[in-house]
Amino acid sequence: MNIPIEYTTGPRIKEVIITPIAIVDPPLLNAAGLHAPYALRTIVEVITDDNITGISEIPGNIAINEALEAAGKLIIGKDPFQLNQIKKILEKNFGKEDMSKRGLTPWDQRKLVHIFSSIEVACLDIIGKIINRPVVDLLGGKLRDRVPFAAYLFYKPEGAGGELEFNTDRNATGWPKARQETATDPQQMVQQAIAMCKEFGFKSIKLKGGVYEPQVEVDTMLALHKEFGPDVPLRIDPNGIWEVGTAIKVGQMLHGIIEYLEDPVRGQENMAIVKRELNIPLATNMCTTSFEDIPNSIKLHSEDIILSDHHFWGGLQSSMKLAAICETFGRDLSMHSNSHLGISLAAMVHLGAALPNLRYALDTHYPWQSDEVIMGGRIKFEDGSVEVPKGPGLGVELDRNALGLLHKNYLHCGLTKRDDETEMQKIEKEWKFQAVRW
Amino acid sequence: MNIPIEYTTGPRIKEVIITPIAIVDPPLLNAAGLHAPYALRTIVEVITDDNITGISEIPGNIAINEALEAAGKLIIGKDPFQLNQIKKILEKNFGKEDMSKRGLTPWDQRKLVHIFSSIEVACLDIIGKIINRPVVDLLGGKLRDRVPFAAYLFYKPEGAGGELEFNTDRNATGWPKARQETATDPQQMVQQAIAMCKEFGFKSIKLKGGVYEPQVEVDTMLALHKEFGPDVPLRIDPNGIWEVGTAIKVGQMLHGIIEYLEDPVRGQENMAIVKRELNIPLATNMCTTSFEDIPNSIKLHSEDIILSDHHFWGGLQSSMKLAAICETFGRDLSMHSNSHLGISLAAMVHLGAALPNLRYALDTHYPWQSDEVIMGGRIKFEDGSVEVPKGPGLGVELDRNALGLLHKNYLHCGLTKRDDETEMQKIEKEWKFQAVRW
Repeated sequence: MNIPIEYTTGPRIKEVIITPIAIVDPPLLNAAGLHAPYALRTIVEVITDDNITGISEIPGNIAINEALEAAGKLIIGKDPFQLNQIKKILEKNFGKEDMSKRGLTPWDQRKLVHIFSSIEVACLDIIGKIINRPVVDLLGGKLRDRVPFAAYLFYKPEGAGGELEFNTDRNATGWPKARQETATDPQQMVQQAIAMCKEFGFKSIKLKGGVYEPQVEVDTMLALHKEFGPDVPLRIDPNGIWEVGTAIKVGQMLHGIIEYLEDPVRGQENMAIVKRELNIPLATNMCTTSFEDIPNSIKLHSEDIILSDHHFWGGLQSSMKLAAICETFGRDLSMHSNSHLGISLAAMVHLGAALPNLRYALDTHYPWQSDEVIMGGRIKFEDGSVEVPKGPGLGVELDRNALGLLHKNYLHCGLTKRDDETEMQKIEKEWKFQAVRW
Repeated sequence: MNIPIEYTTGPRIKEVIITPIAIVDPPLLNAAGLHAPYALRTIVEVITDDNITGISEIPGNIAINEALEAAGKLIIGKDPFQLNQIKKILEKNFGKEDMSKRGLTPWDQRKLVHIFSSIEVACLDIIGKIINRPVVDLLGGKLRDRVPFAAYLFYKPEGAGGELEFNTDRNATGWPKARQETATDPQQMVQQAIAMCKEFGFKSIKLKGGVYEPQVEVDTMLALHKEFGPDVPLRIDPNGIWEVGTAIKVGQMLHGIIEYLEDPVRGQENMAIVKRELNIPLATNMCTTSFEDIPNSIKLHSEDIILSDHHFWGGLQSSMKLAAICETFGRDLSMHSNSHLGISLAAMVHLGAALPNLRYALDTHYPWQSDEVIMGGRIKFEDGSVEVPKGPGLGVELDRNALGLLHKNYLHCGLTKRDDETEMQKIEKEWKFQAVRW
């Protein structure tokens, strides 16, 4: 392919800065184990030769960061508008992504999609700043002023994660207190939900399941339904840890109670079997996680809702293309989340505001975090939703003091990748990750 | 849906001007009859309150123009960046498009896709002018500096169409002369191809078939192959007029000679049958012509190449989404054309330059036209390709004098829609359109 080299004027990328950070994370239980006291994120700054800085945030992982360092060098001198070209260059240099690298964990371990997402979002931030428009306007413009999110409940032992040295803007009342409380049975989960909905105003509730034997989690869902009634949509996500028979049984018990069942089983084939047996929409962020997975998803009808994640799908424009595919094939699109800060949240909100159809509140771990890396501190939720930042660009700016402190956290904490199994073994020595457990 | 009303600053649309024009068109034969002496186009100007004008061009049709007048009123006061919102407003007001309105003819008669295409392209032209970037940069940026087109051969009786009063920039040598010549047998078609390739430098050749009995058209293809050899890719498009058995027979005779067979039969089911029997890629702009057609196309594998047309697929951004669908499902994308001028050509070139994969030269009727409505006159082809206009916006501007003359043509010629059957009956009284003939 002959890539045109010099054909437009305008600023060029002169530098890409990658800063790994560690943010305080509570001990949240999930099918893969336990969240460590710190979650890792990587902050990416793309700087043009006229000193416009675009920023982005992706999950932190040393292997991805190293690849990202190499990728950054490849785009020096490029025009940030030329995202098609930048994508081709990265694809050419990194080769075809091995989709098996997605891994069995709830988080995604592929390199190229993360690299391209981080560079694309930062470039869109730059473009927005150049043209004085919010990122949502680079995605066709805003269809809603606020984007709704769901409460995200986690079973958890006592504790609040790493040292809370930077959480000076959080007092000990309301959610931050509840955030430290033990939550291992249905009634404690109801209390967690009440506290979270009170502080953030969420109108939908998701339970991260796959932690206890299925009956405990069903009882939790029934308790939530009893407490919140039929007007609060509920969902449960066991991260594919159930057998097909278990998933069908759980689905039957939760019929009429939940708006969708997320990743009850592993693999598109198994999802399709469960789907045929249940009259409940299925959602996924584990069995259909790339464009390469789409043809088989359509063939099998493995899910009704794809929970996109712009960090895993190669950016915001790719996510809009995924939305077009979903619309074309009668599927819904909503969003997946990992522990994250305000840069990722802002990107999710810009994307969420541009999606032509948005029937489900998005996932976010944001309430579980207390750190922030953007100026002005933590982004506010009202009535469970976040207002689209008014821009230009993402509409959020790096707080360099916070970035420095959170990078120091990274260096001190010694973590280089997410490993929930090792963390779980600290409280339960014999615990082993199992792809399918019940 | 609550559409946000006022949330960004920047110019608003204050006026939409719709000007029907008639352009000289030669008597080109096709499965639906004969081109009239004038082809109809509609020029759309969208003007902002700070007097930035965006332009676009769509096929001319009085019913579409009337709907477009109504659509224009609905977008007064809107921000041209808010294309998602504009699309929702138009969809809401015009209701769900009846896909059967596509019709049996080679041209598309649906309203909403044309309306949205015309407004979207004009808004992208405005946006490009505001941010001082070519339209291709609003589609992710340029992957190639020039976009290749194919020679488009037509059987034709003698004559050059309507009065050539505006063709002052064309002399009587080369293609303009050949353009008037009779071409009804294989050797005349070879001469037409030689003249066209000589003047425009085309490297691929397409024959508009469906005019004569299939053996004549096969003989034409064989004569072209003999003349141009294996390095010039050939294609034939009978606009779905063949029976399945005929298509298979023709395909077998042309195996090894053509790069693809375009719309040999009608309907996705029949296309899929032909595909199973032939080892030749199939292309379409007649059986899969909307996003609504895609799921069944994927299910049946009715074609390998979708010949998009941004006028029929709702604009340039929609076409990029179609490209993403094609890439996801391992299909190719190329482009269809009708008789058109330089505004449509510029839009096609911007889109063609942004497409991630472009294996086939695009269709264009442009060499058959001699009028132009843009400043600077006719767009130049070199080596069969057109350079991407450097912008801002589409990079072409209306020639108001030419627009006035071509609008006068429209008023004088008395045509209000394309009707190749009526035109054909002027030279062959008993001729009737048949959806399937051989």
